[in-house]
Amino acid sequence: MSLNSFGHLFRVTTWGESHGPALGATVDGCPPGIAITAEDIQQWLDKRKPGTSKYTTQRREADEVEILSGVFEGKTTGTPIQLMIRNTDQRSKDYGDIAEKFRPGHADITYWQKYGIRDYRGGGRSSARETAARVAAGGIARAALAELAPDLKITGYMVQMGPRAIDRDRFDWGQINENPFWTPDSQAADEWAGYLDELRKSGNSVGAVIEVTARGVPVGLGAPIYGKLDTELAAAMMSINAVKGVEIGEGMAAAALTGSANADEIFMGNDGKPVYSSNHAGGILGGISTGQDVVVRFAVKPTSSILTPRQTITKSGQSAEIVTRGRHDPCVGIRAVPVGEAMMACVLLDHLLLHHGQNGEGIRGRIG
Amino acid sequence: MSLNSFGHLFRVTTWGESHGPALGATVDGCPPGIAITAEDIQQWLDKRKPGTSKYTTQRREADEVEILSGVFEGKTTGTPIQLMIRNTDQRSKDYGDIAEKFRPGHADITYWQKYGIRDYRGGGRSSARETAARVAAGGIARAALAELAPDLKITGYMVQMGPRAIDRDRFDWGQINENPFWTPDSQAADEWAGYLDELRKSGNSVGAVIEVTARGVPVGLGAPIYGKLDTELAAAMMSINAVKGVEIGEGMAAAALTGSANADEIFMGNDGKPVYSSNHAGGILGGISTGQDVVVRFAVKPTSSILTPRQTITKSGQSAEIVTRGRHDPCVGIRAVPVGEAMMACVLLDHLLLHHGQNGEGIRGRIG
Amino acid sequence: MSLNSFGHLFRVTTWGESHGPALGATVDGCPPGIAITAEDIQQWLDKRKPGTSKYTTQRREADEVEILSGVFEGKTTGTPIQLMIRNTDQRSKDYGDIAEKFRPGHADITYWQKYGIRDYRGGGRSSARETAARVAAGGIARAALAELAPDLKITGYMVQMGPRAIDRDRFDWGQINENPFWTPDSQAADEWAGYLDELRKSGNSVGAVIEVTARGVPVGLGAPIYGKLDTELAAAMMSINAVKGVEIGEGMAAAALTGSANADEIFMGNDGKPVYSSNHAGGILGGISTGQDVVVRFAVKPTSSILTPRQTITKSGQSAEIVTRGRHDPCVGIRAVPVGEAMMACVLLDHLLLHHGQNGEGIRGRIG
Amino acid sequence: MSLNSFGHLFRVTTWGESHGPALGATVDGCPPGIAITAEDIQQWLDKRKPGTSKYTTQRREADEVEILSGVFEGKTTGTPIQLMIRNTDQRSKDYGDIAEKFRPGHADITYWQKYGIRDYRGGGRSSARETAARVAAGGIARAALAELAPDLKITGYMVQMGPRAIDRDRFDWGQINENPFWTPDSQAADEWAGYLDELRKSGNSVGAVIEVTARGVPVGLGAPIYGKLDTELAAAMMSINAVKGVEIGEGMAAAALTGSANADEIFMGNDGKPVYSSNHAGGILGGISTGQDVVVRFAVKPTSSILTPRQTITKSGQSAEIVTRGRHDPCVGIRAVPVGEAMMACVLLDHLLLHHGQNGEGIRGRIG
Repeated sequence: MSLNSFGHLFRVTTWGESHGPALGATVDGCPPGIAITAEDIQQWLDKRKPGTSKYTTQRREADEVEILSGVFEGKTTGTPIQLMIRNTDQRSKDYGDIAEKFRPGHADITYWQKYGIRDYRGGGRSSARETAARVAAGGIARAALAELAPDLKITGYMVQMGPRAIDRDRFDWGQINENPFWTPDSQAADEWAGYLDELRKSGNSVGAVIEVTARGVPVGLGAPIYGKLDTELAAAMMSINAVKGVEIGEGMAAAALTGSANADEIFMGNDGKPVYSSNHAGGILGGISTGQDVVVRFAVKPTSSILTPRQTITKSGQSAEIVTRGRHDPCVGIRAVPVGEAMMACVLLDHLLLHHGQNGEGIRGRIG
Repeated sequence: MSLNSFGHLFRVTTWGESHGPALGATVDGCPPGIAITAEDIQQWLDKRKPGTSKYTTQRREADEVEILSGVFEGKTTGTPIQLMIRNTDQRSKDYGDIAEKFRPGHADITYWQKYGIRDYRGGGRSSARETAARVAAGGIARAALAELAPDLKITGYMVQMGPRAIDRDRFDWGQINENPFWTPDSQAADEWAGYLDELRKSGNSVGAVIEVTARGVPVGLGAPIYGKLDTELAAAMMSINAVKGVEIGEGMAAAALTGSANADEIFMGNDGKPVYSSNHAGGILGGISTGQDVVVRFAVKPTSSILTPRQTITKSGQSAEIVTRGRHDPCVGIRAVPVGEAMMACVLLDHLLLHHGQNGEGIRGRIG
Repeated sequence: MSLNSFGHLFRVTTWGESHGPALGATVDGCPPGIAITAEDIQQWLDKRKPGTSKYTTQRREADEVEILSGVFEGKTTGTPIQLMIRNTDQRSKDYGDIAEKFRPGHADITYWQKYGIRDYRGGGRSSARETAARVAAGGIARAALAELAPDLKITGYMVQMGPRAIDRDRFDWGQINENPFWTPDSQAADEWAGYLDELRKSGNSVGAVIEVTARGVPVGLGAPIYGKLDTELAAAMMSINAVKGVEIGEGMAAAALTGSANADEIFMGNDGKPVYSSNHAGGILGGISTGQDVVVRFAVKPTSSILTPRQTITKSGQSAEIVTRGRHDPCVGIRAVPVGEAMMACVLLDHLLLHHGQNGEGIRGRIG
Repeated sequence: MSLNSFGHLFRVTTWGESHGPALGATVDGCPPGIAITAEDIQQWLDKRKPGTSKYTTQRREADEVEILSGVFEGKTTGTPIQLMIRNTDQRSKDYGDIAEKFRPGHADITYWQKYGIRDYRGGGRSSARETAARVAAGGIARAALAELAPDLKITGYMVQMGPRAIDRDRFDWGQINENPFWTPDSQAADEWAGYLDELRKSGNSVGAVIEVTARGVPVGLGAPIYGKLDTELAAAMMSINAVKGVEIGEGMAAAALTGSANADEIFMGNDGKPVYSSNHAGGILGGISTGQDVVVRFAVKPTSSILTPRQTITKSGQSAEIVTRGRHDPCVGIRAVPVGEAMMACVLLDHLLLHHGQNGEGIRGRIG
């Protein structure tokens, strides 16, 4: 029942602090015989790594992952996989003055109140660095999915930065890897570049909305009632630092629709499988995947570590002003893209295994 | 690891189908010595009960709860509490024609594909009737909270019906119980009444947004990283039928804010406790409650059971048209209000117990 | 994490007290499409039912099970199955005097100290009546195993009553159902009959050792390290009331053996599958089933409810003498036989599903 | 639901193989503010460390533990603690010939069949080296118990080696640390020394029985029905490599007793607390601790790695003879003593936290 774990059969526990010796993920329940190397995982970590563009924190971390267990001669053995990432750039002195002051919008004050002790260096456990461990674990999940559900493809991308949303008419899958914001709208990318540059220079930050789409999802994943795929994805995304909202398919906008507008009509496709007239449901009906694209969106709040002076208090209860001078992301949402992909991969693999456990492989009820 | 359960120490498993003999909740981990009667629980069920106004389904269910275990001489014993609600109005003939056809927007098709068998009567397990069991379990949670956190007050209310949102300037706690929509904006209630009447007559339905606020929440509830209070609330709300989006505090709108606008500044209050300039965070920082109001919102999609004919297919793969003639809610969001409250109660009690387990009672780090 | 639950994918939560309105089991994770009726379950309950011979308690309970959910048209649907057994013979007056006195050897004193409240009627939650719920759940597990592992056969039997053990040379599977003690040694059955008669008349009781053997167990069930099949079976059996010791295969006697005597040598059988020279391991190596018989034994302590006066204290701390006049079993071990079988069935089904989840169906590493 | 984890609130997941880069334990749910250093943990690891006497394997491992997370300035923070032990003496060539042959009595064959891949070097995940991670985690549990239950004292010792049991009349707590077998009977220690020497020289091995006693256990730990303290301890001990039997209190011998002989009578002690005439129950009634000594025993089978040639088969199904020439323990039971202590510590801390979670601190029902 570890509160630092997620997943059921494919279960990930992350550990480690921003400025401790290392951080990592303990991954249990992976199917055996999956080909995996540190390099396979590294590609995803590199996507998340800080310091890759001027739009992300200038903290330099090698973020090199080591596989300490559970893999033998290049294949998973079915026993726990330990993934460790050493912290190398621990400029702890940058954070000395936050030992006493609570940064607004951060976990500083609540960790202190709850535990009576906190590793204040870089946010300790509450640092976004924890997401590196998720991405590493997601690398394992992706490798397993590549064998068990080879048609599955997971893609994350940014659909809104601050108040500026993309134009869905310009959506181009091919553009996602061509700009520093992982956005499918190249025109938005251009506009965001200037916008974010100004924000960064002014010492401010801004939020974002990330969307993650999984194409080629097998039919039948997810389980009523509390193991609904929507529930699991919502929990997975909401557990990422700074996320404050999660949507499946139509999301919050579903509230504004009528029943006749919202229901996705069903037809038989040419290949004898059901097809749908639309995908308001985000690929999930009754908590179970339909085979359509699974679409989840989440909002990342703006980094609270900004140069704008903010009012706060100290541990001793004194009023204080705080300016966070560390090396921070003007828009952490950018680096949340690979994190969202990793969480999607973990959830889908977990539910694929759960489905196999209860129902065997494939679907049970054929149509036609 | 039951997928029909939620919670950690205070753990609820619901069971039962819409048209089976009964449904209910198995509640484990309740503190002992809590005064509780069936009547205490019944008051919450009555709030959710169908048929109370023309805006909810005309299905008539007594929804009478029986306590079968775990309570002795009016007090909880600390052992599992079984809450059972008999299904009395099972007009199964209404649903006969959906044995073969899959209703668009419903779980019919995915249950069939996943399991190869489904109780099609009234949606079976996927029916919104399941939420009665949640409300009953929530009644236990509320009784326990009344003793362990007497200042805590949980209130749910509707803030949007279809495209029509309330005006926050007219927000009045006192109005919530005065209209059939549980909305704090009495003017909105009037407008919605006419709007919904027309929708109902035209055989259509509409979505809604529900907000649940918990006031007087103890500081320190929630736990990093996957046991964050945001995560737990998101999962709790997203697990409710027809919910497609969940927000904490600022929610999706946080994406549009700058860091300077979003951070809640901290001051010392007159009673020596921290106060905040605002509550963008929805009462949760780093996954842990701050003592401010905990605010969660969720979107309920419009009922897919409508009189408007929709295209679908049958089990044998034939095209078909479907009209759902059953007795349905034009806006299920209304009845989701007490359900959201119940989920909030369960999550907060669970995390109160978890906090006591790891940290003892009260907070560990005092300020000042 | 319910402490009244066991199992992972096939998960059983029992609820109910000896003298409350009902007791039962919530069974989640059962594969769908399994044929099951109340009668199928009833046969196992009848085997456990009190009052069937003079060697068991004269309490008369119909022990009729009702299926309240999760089964539709005679088949499991994959959603939670609720099994309820009404308590009919609740002679509460028999237990009136134990409201104040703690019975030695019973849970009375510890429940009181832990919870500050206890349902003293018939032991409440700690009554052996709880095992009826296990047997009912085991009926579901057996039905699922009959489809998923049709060669599997689970048999429980008594191998020791008080100090009198069976003679293994007289072991005859065919005798087990021919005597009131479910023992494979008919001569022992005769001797035990007289022995137990005397004990019963003298108002005393005696312990027993039960063995449960599963034949035809698929290779590969169980998982390192804490999910070892030995661990799961030990927990399952030790969780039964009055059990104080559990053994796998050679059990405690393994301590007395040398390595050369204990190791089961391996050969290739005529059908191209491994065979073993012996089965000291009880069918489990490294926590995983070998395909040999899985053999578990457990010791049931003598009923503490006896007519011999014993010293105790009252809730107010006064010395007292207690004689338990209720209708009790002189050897509860007899009725533990079907309970042990039920637990074996639940554990094996759970691990069969877990194996399918992580590894797919069948074994992964073939020999030869 | 990780199958490589144990515990509920205090949850330990171990990872790593005998000859991989490292092994360790991820410990979640530890109370914050507990003083702990690597040295505190090291003392327990040193007790388990191989190569300390001629009676244990001559494999030389530094077994130095590193704390990678969850501890800040010498105190636990309440977040996951990662404990890593590097493998230094990996003489893999010793194990080359077992890549093809399955060692009788080992997990070789079942791991292969289940997973289709196994790390054969030194037994991989099934090696007794895994227990080092348990001992490290137990060091954390002991430190927490030292603060939360300062009167609690856990002591493990050997009570039987091969067929030779200690004489309980010679039981002396003071002798346990004075001989290489951790036995309280110094005369037995002398006899065992010669006996084991001969066994070792003959290339054979022998089993043992370990007893672990916890004195000063708070009243009220454990929970009905599947979270009984007996169940949890049985699972904890049975999960240790090579353990095949577990007993609580009277254990298997309880079967031979009558009710009048087995029940521990209750009296009021001079300090106003209940005292018992005896402790057949092993300190646990109805699954809940009484405050008496909690006593658990477990049997460790003889090491299957012996010089005596044994018959087996190869992966390709050929008959073969095997002699295990590695550096092994003639009696692994010796090193199981600190492992049993560690498991006891973890279980008791976990249930102390669970008790605080559900019931608050202390007992709820006072007597007198």
